[in-house]
Amino acid sequence: MDQIAGAVLADLKVIPTPGGPVLHMLRADSPLFMGLGEIYFSEVEPGAVKAWKRHLRMTQHFAVPVGLLKVVLHDDRPDSPTRGSTAEYLLGRPDHYRLLRIPPLVWYGFTAVGPVPALVCNCADLAHDPVESERAGLDDPRIPFGWEE
Amino acid sequence: MDQIAGAVLADLKVIPTPGGPVLHMLRADSPLFMGLGEIYFSEVEPGAVKAWKRHLRMTQHFAVPVGLLKVVLHDDRPDSPTRGSTAEYLLGRPDHYRLLRIPPLVWYGFTAVGPVPALVCNCADLAHDPVESERAGLDDPRIPFGWEE
Repeated sequence: MDQIAGAVLADLKVIPTPGGPVLHMLRADSPLFMGLGEIYFSEVEPGAVKAWKRHLRMTQHFAVPVGLLKVVLHDDRPDSPTRGSTAEYLLGRPDHYRLLRIPPLVWYGFTAVGPVPALVCNCADLAHDPVESERAGLDDPRIPFGWEE
Repeated sequence: MDQIAGAVLADLKVIPTPGGPVLHMLRADSPLFMGLGEIYFSEVEPGAVKAWKRHLRMTQHFAVPVGLLKVVLHDDRPDSPTRGSTAEYLLGRPDHYRLLRIPPLVWYGFTAVGPVPALVCNCADLAHDPVESERAGLDDPRIPFGWEE
């Protein structure tokens, strides 16, 4: 799989407890923590695709505590050592519970895999601001990835 | 329903979007934000009870993006104007998506209501530290609430 400069994938702990597990996401004393601007969720219906989007300044951290999500990143940053790379990540339960950092200016999209909705939690270093992100269509020619494959 | 001094219940937005909704939780510029120590999840199996616990210093903020949760608080803080009060809150989808602040030193417990597991997200102002919390049994005589009712 291609690497994307600035993207980080880190294992997260799932701790069995009576009545249901505790799932770690992010601690302020973690080397991964970059400050909190906003925390919110995105629910993704089975088979639905949410793509493409990129943030100009926001760094995102995704975890998927319910369901299974395929996240695709594409790097067309002019100065990036991984310019032109596309990478796919599976996030979710039970076998892929981990944290994905998505750096600013990298295109991202995601889809729910399997029969149940996936829940993405985004721990972002900036609060939502509509002027610091941009969108592209699923078939944007700048991004060589086919969601229908 | 009894009030508990320091507990706050605030409506949260659910924003319909193609492929599944976006669910707000907490922004750093919100008057409710008290700093982030750790964000983690607790999954609760249908009918399971996780109780009782209280934190000595941590303030918690709960939201339930999946499923439905009944949270019970009991206040036995010696100096509290609501000492002796017990309060119940429903948190979750689709009709009770909101944020609950649980202040330190208030006993809390919760159970999943309905047929599916509930997912609690806790945005806490301190990272997990086993020495700043304590537990009590479901039938602790200090807490006049019966989970089996």
